[in-house]
Amino acid sequence: MATFNSLPGFREFYPEDYAQRKHIFQVWRQVARRFAFQEFDGPILESLELFTTKSGPEIESQLFCFEDKGGRQVSLRPELTPSLARMVAARANGLKRPIKWFSIGDNFRYERMQKGRLRCFTQLNVDLLGEQGPSAEVELIGLLVQTLVGFGLTKDDFYVRLSDRNLWMLYLAALGYEGEAIGSILGVVDKWERLPEEKLIAQLQEVAGDKAAELKAAVDAFLRLDSVEAIRERFAGLQADESAKQELSERLADWQVVLDGLSAMGFGGFVKIDLSIVRGLAYYTGFVFEAFDKKGEFRALAGGGRYDALVKKMGGPDMPAVGFGMGDVVLGELLKARGKMPEFVDTIDFFAVTGGDAEKLAALSDVALLRQAGYSVEYQLKSQAFGKQLKAAASSGARFSLIYGSEELEKGVVKLRNLADRSEQDVPRGQLLEAVRELF
Amino acid sequence: MATFNSLPGFREFYPEDYAQRKHIFQVWRQVARRFAFQEFDGPILESLELFTTKSGPEIESQLFCFEDKGGRQVSLRPELTPSLARMVAARANGLKRPIKWFSIGDNFRYERMQKGRLRCFTQLNVDLLGEQGPSAEVELIGLLVQTLVGFGLTKDDFYVRLSDRNLWMLYLAALGYEGEAIGSILGVVDKWERLPEEKLIAQLQEVAGDKAAELKAAVDAFLRLDSVEAIRERFAGLQADESAKQELSERLADWQVVLDGLSAMGFGGFVKIDLSIVRGLAYYTGFVFEAFDKKGEFRALAGGGRYDALVKKMGGPDMPAVGFGMGDVVLGELLKARGKMPEFVDTIDFFAVTGGDAEKLAALSDVALLRQAGYSVEYQLKSQAFGKQLKAAASSGARFSLIYGSEELEKGVVKLRNLADRSEQDVPRGQLLEAVRELF
Repeated sequence: MATFNSLPGFREFYPEDYAQRKHIFQVWRQVARRFAFQEFDGPILESLELFTTKSGPEIESQLFCFEDKGGRQVSLRPELTPSLARMVAARANGLKRPIKWFSIGDNFRYERMQKGRLRCFTQLNVDLLGEQGPSAEVELIGLLVQTLVGFGLTKDDFYVRLSDRNLWMLYLAALGYEGEAIGSILGVVDKWERLPEEKLIAQLQEVAGDKAAELKAAVDAFLRLDSVEAIRERFAGLQADESAKQELSERLADWQVVLDGLSAMGFGGFVKIDLSIVRGLAYYTGFVFEAFDKKGEFRALAGGGRYDALVKKMGGPDMPAVGFGMGDVVLGELLKARGKMPEFVDTIDFFAVTGGDAEKLAALSDVALLRQAGYSVEYQLKSQAFGKQLKAAASSGARFSLIYGSEELEKGVVKLRNLADRSEQDVPRGQLLEAVRELF
Repeated sequence: MATFNSLPGFREFYPEDYAQRKHIFQVWRQVARRFAFQEFDGPILESLELFTTKSGPEIESQLFCFEDKGGRQVSLRPELTPSLARMVAARANGLKRPIKWFSIGDNFRYERMQKGRLRCFTQLNVDLLGEQGPSAEVELIGLLVQTLVGFGLTKDDFYVRLSDRNLWMLYLAALGYEGEAIGSILGVVDKWERLPEEKLIAQLQEVAGDKAAELKAAVDAFLRLDSVEAIRERFAGLQADESAKQELSERLADWQVVLDGLSAMGFGGFVKIDLSIVRGLAYYTGFVFEAFDKKGEFRALAGGGRYDALVKKMGGPDMPAVGFGMGDVVLGELLKARGKMPEFVDTIDFFAVTGGDAEKLAALSDVALLRQAGYSVEYQLKSQAFGKQLKAAASSGARFSLIYGSEELEKGVVKLRNLADRSEQDVPRGQLLEAVRELF
């Protein structure tokens, strides 16, 4: 006798667990469809190079990667976006734009397990490609908010932190930094809340030398900004040439489009400007955003942003893109914690109770008929006393029982019992479907 | 610039492909629910040992297996059944019986690719555990037939070949074989249709020596049997002791239960006795069955049988079980070949057409409102001339367009245009939802 366990970080879904999973998938699909996004899917196993091309060779340490029997270096996908980018690249000319796609699928990361983090998780990915302007962000962030609202979550439960890598570029350029220095500084900003002040300054010294403390103060000031007006004022105090001023003014207009659009959708109260979000992934090129629970008890619920360079990198044409991912693990934890995960009770329409073999065959014929007509029907597989079957029917969650005794068989009827109010009627077997249709 | 391909045997699903996939999943789920089966799922990655325990070490050559970063020998699952057996074993005492479960998920096999065979395929698995009698087979095979009927397939398109490993045991015992010899002979029977006569006899000689030709004739005679009566007669001509006679008589009664039950369900015409089906997998212990297209153009559509020993082998109690698997690849090919794959056309409810920025913000507010109410709504993200937007609305597949011009904005209305009959009405914006509800 052997005993087995599932691997660490991989879940089993018994029916009661699967019902919750299904609820999450249903809301995801429903909201995406209302926003006129189309579902697609990519392979779960891909060539390793697909992922290292997007994220660099470092990613390999987090991957379930191996050599397959054909000598290929392959990996379970840690995310869907590289496959999406390849698929879009391959058919870029034939696809109607904007491309509005979503997918629900498993992703795999070999990571240290923590609360909210597993090695296999299911993620909703929503991507909008082919639209360069900020109206794409309005649609995407609107969908993100509507999805969480679709689960019954409110302004008191979550919010979206909105930031912008472009704005950071403009700011750091106005402070006199350029090229790789900007990337290094953003790398430090990404750790701003987690590291103590002296470590931050030490890391900034590598870029800013003895101006590190000054840079730190400038970053702190930027992180406090919480309105377009405040951002505008902050820049006003800095030296800038005309082209930089023009760029800033255009960028702030984009910000206004995003904020006004989301407000028009009724989602203004869900969005907070928070420039501390820069997102580690190197490929974001504009607005970035993350959704969090309001009490700060959980990891991010969702994250995304603009990634205009990826499709080209994957062999396609220039293709602006914005997208986000929302995992099922943290979301499920939050829904349970906030009492927003419904209780799922299995119900069936009918439970057939039968006497001997002849009655059972009569019942099977009706059972098949009702199932064909769309009803869910259960019956006791093993031969059992009438009383026991009636008990099983009552505890099955069925709305009606169908009773086939010798008397009914003789009269050519079936006794239809409403299990809620115990009312009964004899229905001629040839008219069962008609009688049943009146009940639903 | 890099270009990438998906791995051989792994599919990408563009939205039009995904729509077909979704159709298959929907019918699978719908029929399983009508039969009162509950959905569950297991992990896609498991310990390698789970699969070698069930199927022997030979299986490894067909697996996507590797060592993970924690030094574990792991494998992508080639099938769901071992995970199912483990899950049932772990909670055997707490689960209400019979256990009626189904699952839809990906499986992976490193195989030479052929028509209908890929390296990653999605399979419906349906399993009924805890019921020893043949009524379990009635329910399972009934579900199998109803599922294929649910796709619009008929008696002219497919049938189920029903066989029985128990009957083979009884027959070969009556011919004087026992123990391992029986397994070896069944191994040859499994290849009966594919090997030339002299090869069959050569292989039988290893078990039967100079009685190989006689054994071959006896197998041929058995393979021709196509009714319970014919089976009974065949056995009548053989030597047998009382206990063997008793066993046969009970087994033929089981056969009658299965055939009568399926006939009562209206599925008699879909089932054909065909003792050539023995199924390679070593773990089947009773009835076995496979569904095939009637023209014989495709591989098996589905296959399954009784496997009473597996749950115990996986660490659980004695647990009778019967199940089947149905893959999406052959099924999809058959549906397309028979014209039973529906055409999927994307439709949306509304397409909003807007003038300038103020009109767009008004539109976004209504778009959000309609989406919240459950409608699917599209609009042009980029600023565009009115005429172009109207054209986009017309070609979008939307049923109605919502028109927000400066005139409408001034009057506080939206023009609602039926894109089928071109009829229009001005709706006060505060009453949009009420007006829309009357249209659907």
